[in-house]
Amino acid sequence: MSKHFEITKKSASRRKFIGDVAKGLSVAALGAHLELPAMGRSPLSLSNELSRAGAKGVGFVIHGGAGTIVRGKMTREMEESYRVMLTQALTTGYDILKRNGSGLDAVEAALKIMEDSPLFNAGKGAVFTNAGTNELDASIMDGKTLKAGAVSNLKHIKNPISLARLVMERSPHVMMVGDGAETFATQQGMKLMPQEYFYTERRWKELQQEKEEEKKAKEPTKKSQHAELPQPMQHSELFKRTPHDGLRESLREPHTPFVGDKHGTVGAAALDSEGNLAAGTSTGGLSNKKFGRVGDSPIIGAGTYANNLTCAISATGDGEYFIRSVVAHDISALMEYRGMPLKEAAQTVINKVGKLGGTGGVIGIDKDGNTAMVFNTEGMYRGYMDASGKPVVEIYKES
Amino acid sequence: MSKHFEITKKSASRRKFIGDVAKGLSVAALGAHLELPAMGRSPLSLSNELSRAGAKGVGFVIHGGAGTIVRGKMTREMEESYRVMLTQALTTGYDILKRNGSGLDAVEAALKIMEDSPLFNAGKGAVFTNAGTNELDASIMDGKTLKAGAVSNLKHIKNPISLARLVMERSPHVMMVGDGAETFATQQGMKLMPQEYFYTERRWKELQQEKEEEKKAKEPTKKSQHAELPQPMQHSELFKRTPHDGLRESLREPHTPFVGDKHGTVGAAALDSEGNLAAGTSTGGLSNKKFGRVGDSPIIGAGTYANNLTCAISATGDGEYFIRSVVAHDISALMEYRGMPLKEAAQTVINKVGKLGGTGGVIGIDKDGNTAMVFNTEGMYRGYMDASGKPVVEIYKES
Repeated sequence: MSKHFEITKKSASRRKFIGDVAKGLSVAALGAHLELPAMGRSPLSLSNELSRAGAKGVGFVIHGGAGTIVRGKMTREMEESYRVMLTQALTTGYDILKRNGSGLDAVEAALKIMEDSPLFNAGKGAVFTNAGTNELDASIMDGKTLKAGAVSNLKHIKNPISLARLVMERSPHVMMVGDGAETFATQQGMKLMPQEYFYTERRWKELQQEKEEEKKAKEPTKKSQHAELPQPMQHSELFKRTPHDGLRESLREPHTPFVGDKHGTVGAAALDSEGNLAAGTSTGGLSNKKFGRVGDSPIIGAGTYANNLTCAISATGDGEYFIRSVVAHDISALMEYRGMPLKEAAQTVINKVGKLGGTGGVIGIDKDGNTAMVFNTEGMYRGYMDASGKPVVEIYKES
Repeated sequence: MSKHFEITKKSASRRKFIGDVAKGLSVAALGAHLELPAMGRSPLSLSNELSRAGAKGVGFVIHGGAGTIVRGKMTREMEESYRVMLTQALTTGYDILKRNGSGLDAVEAALKIMEDSPLFNAGKGAVFTNAGTNELDASIMDGKTLKAGAVSNLKHIKNPISLARLVMERSPHVMMVGDGAETFATQQGMKLMPQEYFYTERRWKELQQEKEEEKKAKEPTKKSQHAELPQPMQHSELFKRTPHDGLRESLREPHTPFVGDKHGTVGAAALDSEGNLAAGTSTGGLSNKKFGRVGDSPIIGAGTYANNLTCAISATGDGEYFIRSVVAHDISALMEYRGMPLKEAAQTVINKVGKLGGTGGVIGIDKDGNTAMVFNTEGMYRGYMDASGKPVVEIYKES
């Protein structure tokens, strides 16, 4: 997985750019640590450990994807780049909240920064599909009104999170996909970008490597696969022949081998000075994806959910498992119907995802400003504003 | 809304066909009535009224869409057509369950019958988009494994529910949309249909009428709309100008006026002889839809959800409200986390949807075979198998 963090030849100039935009940020924040989710402890002790909202009762928490992020495999420069961009996104959103801006504005502003950075798998840094294109998904939700907007399979939108917000606020719909969504974007005055805008050497190399791995993975089973595909397919027969002895196995051995980086989505959750919650998520999806695959990021209830009664959540990880577990809404439901604190609810749901075989994480904030950042991977790019209004950014599991 | 039930000139031959395939069905079933959801009663009295599963502990329940279905506006022939098709779908699915077939097989078989009928807004009878095309969505979920499959924006797939099942069983993904999903379909041996297959005179006339209404609705506000759309859009400004004083108003007054038939989706939920739950939903979406709009039908957690711990649910109605309310999963969560019986949980969630301004309904079955059919519209095409294994079909609110 070291390729994931490989620094391209152009990275020196990018680091300079990142350094410029991050001017004035607290250096202390870069070295700060986050507490890990206290697995195995009692619900009561958990709730007492939650970090509290910052100034004016507002609060802000973000993620930049979860995955096999191991300290030893990350260069110091790359790590610094991530910390700087996460800090910039955090402080930008938080500044909006401190000035009594809305949670939706904070979420959108922070996610635009991460979408515009080549570091994250969203916007500019989106991974490539199998066809060599970039297809972007995003969603946003307003906890006050339960209004939501979602977009999927976008090819020419610089900031999918902003289009998701336009869908929410400027259309009678919640979800738009593909060309239709882009037609709506242009009608709303949004500029379409050429696909070349989304080209980054790092993601292109990832795609080539994944295709190579996919080719290798296919070869030994080529014959048996063909034997298993009748023409035309009989679904009732199919079902009988598909073993139901464990989901994990069947998904780990797909008929179309699938090797790809499943992580790198960005997300944010905010509590604003009026007590309103908001959440948003944006992604380039799965590297090397085929067949118009859609993950959990644009699915309200799975990748994104906000409800003033409970919490605002953004998820990242193996999208398929997160959809099937209706992750973001399940956390909210545990809080509303079981009275569980946010962190315990988030840990409970991530545990469920893990039992199905899925990996990833969630960030969230509740109506009292408590935040949670829970994941079952090696690391998750993440950060929150502490009680004194300082950004706290972390990457690895162990602090 | 009488146009909705208008009989086309070709209906005589269709009725003959329907009559033929329905040979041997219980005539008593056609006149049978369903109990209405007992609103305002206590949870305990509700749970005692639930209909129980039929033979071998299996159970089956379906819907063919909810909406302003009023007895006086429906011709006797049209009503009979619906009753015959609903009965055929019910008994086909139920026969599979009685022969120890899987819940997934029962759901798929019943939905294929409704997709192949021009009566319902799914498959053959799908409504037209604004562009004059047909775009189909579907999803299916297995309560045993929490595996799921969903497809959206299909243009050439005769039975979207079968493709959703292929996505679930033959790919590592949960959701595929558009051309990509159809590429997967052909790779799996599924035949693509020409768009002409989906042409029905009734739906085409509906589209023309809706476009006419849309044109009328647009005219008086044309000037003010343009004044409200800066080029390019400033989202932060937008947000401040968007009043947050009630979601209903903002969606009832969309910037793009939207007039369309929101109902007619089909769905099924089953309990099989092994105690496994399954649910599925299929739709043509919103008549006159634009911008690649996606409703709740292909969204796992919103339009479809199944979990052996709780229930299997299929929803139909104003898709946007059903997505925002994460309807199907919320019913399951109320059962799992609050211990609510199915019918009370379904009624609670439909009440929430109604408070947001949404209309529609759900059908469901729980792990003990109790069924529920709850809606806040004038009617819902629906049916279930009673304890003696007889199909019970109903259409209107008042029995």
